[in-house]
Amino acid sequence: MFKPTPEFGFALKATDGLARRGTLTTAWGQVETPVFMPVGTAATVKGMMPESVVSTGASIILANTYHLMLRPGAERVAKLGGVRKMMGWDGPLLTDSGGFQVMSLGSLRKLDEDGVTFKSHLDGSQHRLTPKRSTEIQYLLDATITMAFDECTPFPATKLVAAESMALSMRWAKRSREAFHPRTGYGQFGIVQGSVFSDLRAESVAALEGIGFEGYAVGGLAVGEGQSAMFETLEETTPLMLDNKPRYLMGVGKPSDLVGGVARGIDMFDCVLPTRSGRTGQGFTRRGPVNLKNARHADDPRPLDESCSCPACARYSRAYLHHLFKAEEVLSLMLLSWHNIHYYQDLMREMRRAIEIERFSEFEILFHTMQGLGDIDPL
Amino acid sequence: MFKPTPEFGFALKATDGLARRGTLTTAWGQVETPVFMPVGTAATVKGMMPESVVSTGASIILANTYHLMLRPGAERVAKLGGVRKMMGWDGPLLTDSGGFQVMSLGSLRKLDEDGVTFKSHLDGSQHRLTPKRSTEIQYLLDATITMAFDECTPFPATKLVAAESMALSMRWAKRSREAFHPRTGYGQFGIVQGSVFSDLRAESVAALEGIGFEGYAVGGLAVGEGQSAMFETLEETTPLMLDNKPRYLMGVGKPSDLVGGVARGIDMFDCVLPTRSGRTGQGFTRRGPVNLKNARHADDPRPLDESCSCPACARYSRAYLHHLFKAEEVLSLMLLSWHNIHYYQDLMREMRRAIEIERFSEFEILFHTMQGLGDIDPL
Repeated sequence: MFKPTPEFGFALKATDGLARRGTLTTAWGQVETPVFMPVGTAATVKGMMPESVVSTGASIILANTYHLMLRPGAERVAKLGGVRKMMGWDGPLLTDSGGFQVMSLGSLRKLDEDGVTFKSHLDGSQHRLTPKRSTEIQYLLDATITMAFDECTPFPATKLVAAESMALSMRWAKRSREAFHPRTGYGQFGIVQGSVFSDLRAESVAALEGIGFEGYAVGGLAVGEGQSAMFETLEETTPLMLDNKPRYLMGVGKPSDLVGGVARGIDMFDCVLPTRSGRTGQGFTRRGPVNLKNARHADDPRPLDESCSCPACARYSRAYLHHLFKAEEVLSLMLLSWHNIHYYQDLMREMRRAIEIERFSEFEILFHTMQGLGDIDPL
Repeated sequence: MFKPTPEFGFALKATDGLARRGTLTTAWGQVETPVFMPVGTAATVKGMMPESVVSTGASIILANTYHLMLRPGAERVAKLGGVRKMMGWDGPLLTDSGGFQVMSLGSLRKLDEDGVTFKSHLDGSQHRLTPKRSTEIQYLLDATITMAFDECTPFPATKLVAAESMALSMRWAKRSREAFHPRTGYGQFGIVQGSVFSDLRAESVAALEGIGFEGYAVGGLAVGEGQSAMFETLEETTPLMLDNKPRYLMGVGKPSDLVGGVARGIDMFDCVLPTRSGRTGQGFTRRGPVNLKNARHADDPRPLDESCSCPACARYSRAYLHHLFKAEEVLSLMLLSWHNIHYYQDLMREMRRAIEIERFSEFEILFHTMQGLGDIDPL
């Protein structure tokens, strides 16, 4: 049966203060926002089967241009049908542009007006990314949402440096857009830069809207400026952004960052924190983070979070999870990554619901009160 | 509703030559034999969720007295309801006695008439295992099948050494039996020793049957003697063993070892090979082992084994599996361990079926022919 590919689009369904409840429509499915996107850097959400990721309620995931261009290679992924097909992910996929990772390489990279030349962290081989090549790679990866190639301005930066960096990102955004190959149900997002300077952020928003994208990201935050400076920058930036386009805060963050981001009008987030913490023994709970390696859990028959329905909480004790971490068993990170992604999705579900019923402020208070309680007492 | 616990028992349903098709009944479920038991050393089959293990068709798993007594500790496991409850395994569980691991410690252990004193490989702390303590630990772990504590005779051994070692194991078998606390639906197996000397094996079988166990294992094989010596020893040993009791070949083996073991009257096997190989990139297939790290797979869109229905084969390409191994992603070992356990269970299913229809010789020929073909040609 013929099923027409839906147009890429964003519909705002409700608002509560600056917080927004929306639906993003793509060729590969709908995404209810605010949304958290688990990160599958190398075309796998670390330690999880795709069906486990789906079971948490995740509807869109992220993959990484920089990592995939180096290994297994963009053209190879294309021959295998793109990232989604290769890794067995049925929903929409967002890829970052590689800009952030390349900038992180430090002395291994060299920036010029047209792009960045860099050495692979894997084998030292030389590569080059430009707005055109990054966009082409994301096409080869079959990204449902392509990100513009930008320079993630380091923090701290003087206003002059931030302005020049932002201006370069805006010239690259234009070239990224020119290189984007439009397909029904697919979109491309521009990335707002400008560090913590509100006038630069405003200038960046205007420049990107002048080019015109299907969505807009806020980049260059969560790079060391601290949560309050991040929130301040968001407050000065999101009100300038178009209401009818999705807003994506890149690389963020901790649970309280997500709550504060939604409160300031952000619709989309991604972060490695839930899976990375899952590998180191940190579990996120309604009562704050819990370190399962701590000896206090060794004899505790209770679940990590009794209000959580993930397999780690529904079927296992803290004592068993503690044992798995002490024994460095793979199942430890499998279970805790699953739990953490599940927790993040629960948090987003609760926020979506709170906005729908216009109780987001109450939700925020309850969230911070619960987090402040700290972990349950030892037995 | 009251459900009476079934008696522990073994019923022979069919034979074909020496090959046997049976059903083992336990308090925690039935086991169709010949059976392969995946190994969950530290109360987890490495890299797999228990439900994934079940989905392969596995009906009984193994855990390890030595590892669990050191971490998390037998008394702690008992407080958590035993290994089965702690790890969420619904079926029967067999525990080895710790003898094999302790003997492997070399200079870290000291043997005397009553048992072994040894230093933990984890922290050097001193511990002691005796037939009584090993049996008590397995009770604390809630093993459905407890193994007698024995000395695994090293290979090669002179006949004198092998005879003395076997005699010690027989004295320990008696003490293990005395320490066994009978429960309905639970059983204890004695372990035949005697290295490659058929008269010693015969003496050991007689000694164990004199004590009386619910089942009998063949120990001290697959320790370097080679497949043909192992098969020869089996041929001289299994015909002496009771027909109406299960026979378990410990720590074996490769697919061809399992086929040859079944052909020689073995009912039960365990081995770390499928999960260990899963971690190093070796996949077992109907056409022999395949090393997924090999560059020949980098662009291959075909499944590892097209006749396999496991998730790794049903949903992913060799190219993706190769990528996951090159990128050292956790999902690589998750998928390949799953496949390998699934392959082993398929192999056992096929053997059970072949015995039922009295076509085991034809099965053996087909198995060796297929394995001899080697992997499919590169594209």
